[in-house]
Amino acid sequence: MPDPTDLGPFSGPFQHELGRLLRLRRDVRRFRREALPEALMMRLLEAAHLAPSVGLSQPWRFLRVQSAEARAAVLSSFERANAEAAKAYEGEQATHYRALKLAGLQEAPEHLLVCVDRDPAQGAGLGRATLASTLRDSAVCAIQNLWLAARAEGVGVGWVSILDPTELRGPLAIPDAWDWVAYLCIGWPEEALDTPELERLGWEHRRPLSEVLRVR
Amino acid sequence: MPDPTDLGPFSGPFQHELGRLLRLRRDVRRFRREALPEALMMRLLEAAHLAPSVGLSQPWRFLRVQSAEARAAVLSSFERANAEAAKAYEGEQATHYRALKLAGLQEAPEHLLVCVDRDPAQGAGLGRATLASTLRDSAVCAIQNLWLAARAEGVGVGWVSILDPTELRGPLAIPDAWDWVAYLCIGWPEEALDTPELERLGWEHRRPLSEVLRVR
Repeated sequence: MPDPTDLGPFSGPFQHELGRLLRLRRDVRRFRREALPEALMMRLLEAAHLAPSVGLSQPWRFLRVQSAEARAAVLSSFERANAEAAKAYEGEQATHYRALKLAGLQEAPEHLLVCVDRDPAQGAGLGRATLASTLRDSAVCAIQNLWLAARAEGVGVGWVSILDPTELRGPLAIPDAWDWVAYLCIGWPEEALDTPELERLGWEHRRPLSEVLRVR
Repeated sequence: MPDPTDLGPFSGPFQHELGRLLRLRRDVRRFRREALPEALMMRLLEAAHLAPSVGLSQPWRFLRVQSAEARAAVLSSFERANAEAAKAYEGEQATHYRALKLAGLQEAPEHLLVCVDRDPAQGAGLGRATLASTLRDSAVCAIQNLWLAARAEGVGVGWVSILDPTELRGPLAIPDAWDWVAYLCIGWPEEALDTPELERLGWEHRRPLSEVLRVR
């Protein structure tokens, strides 16, 4: 049994540092190539595995992508998808888009594919009848846990959404029961930043909370 | 400019406490009725607003549900959806399901609907061409930020997925451009727990990380 006093609020200094962690967590695309210690990677995966899940189904599935062939397939999918995405922009915005560094697939020592089991036995279906999306949501909560745990250790994470999940099912040998959620690059950042790269490079800037909040 | 030494890893003691936070975060369904301080609620929303977002689009939208009519509509949607969901179980499992407390809608002082703008101008579409789901994923990351910030302050959060989003669009006056992501109950927990309620009550138990991890 844990000491019940351990179950209250966390200390003021911890809360302050947690706020700093949330503010300093970045989407990282510029990695150093050196390997991450295996024990560190396992700590990050354990942090992910502590996420909430609908009906306690723990539906996230993790695939560490390590083989050279699999990594090459992902990189080439990114290059195709990114060239395609660039066509949506014109003139100056197209030039700007092409100059952005949108993934660190080549340099990042760790590639992690996060999937979701689309019909896990665990949890016996609880909470899924009305909102099927909750399974996927659980996997996304796991990603955010991993992201924060990584930043706390000084490790960078980048979510690569410019990929074609369908063409990668074969090369990554994704089990049939798994749906794609996210492809993450993980490694030591070249440089820790306090501002999102897309803001620093002038693509977009952040807006205040007041713009996204209403009362009913 | 921040001090560059502020941009490295966080302290060992902080990392340890962060691990404890991830382990102690619970889905809470038993709330005390007393109001949360407004400044605290705003801190939690600011934590959510620091989440990563595809193309820096910040697509999450927050609706604080405070009117008695709106809260009543949500409660009655839950009761209908839960009665419906219970029909999926038979015999002992049905009895077990009906005995679970699956939402704290009546007691929780704060109700927060999290939505996603399905086509935000912010971010100029970056990262959304191949994976439209990334907008919703950003909103889920915001929820996990809020959940952790709340637990750090000793505040409980419960995600109510047994609701019918379609029938609630009118009563909650959800803007047309917003899609439903999650309905959260927020308040002081009756009791802080170190074990998930569904595990404590024997509905399901957690499995080790090794069961959800593969290498390719």
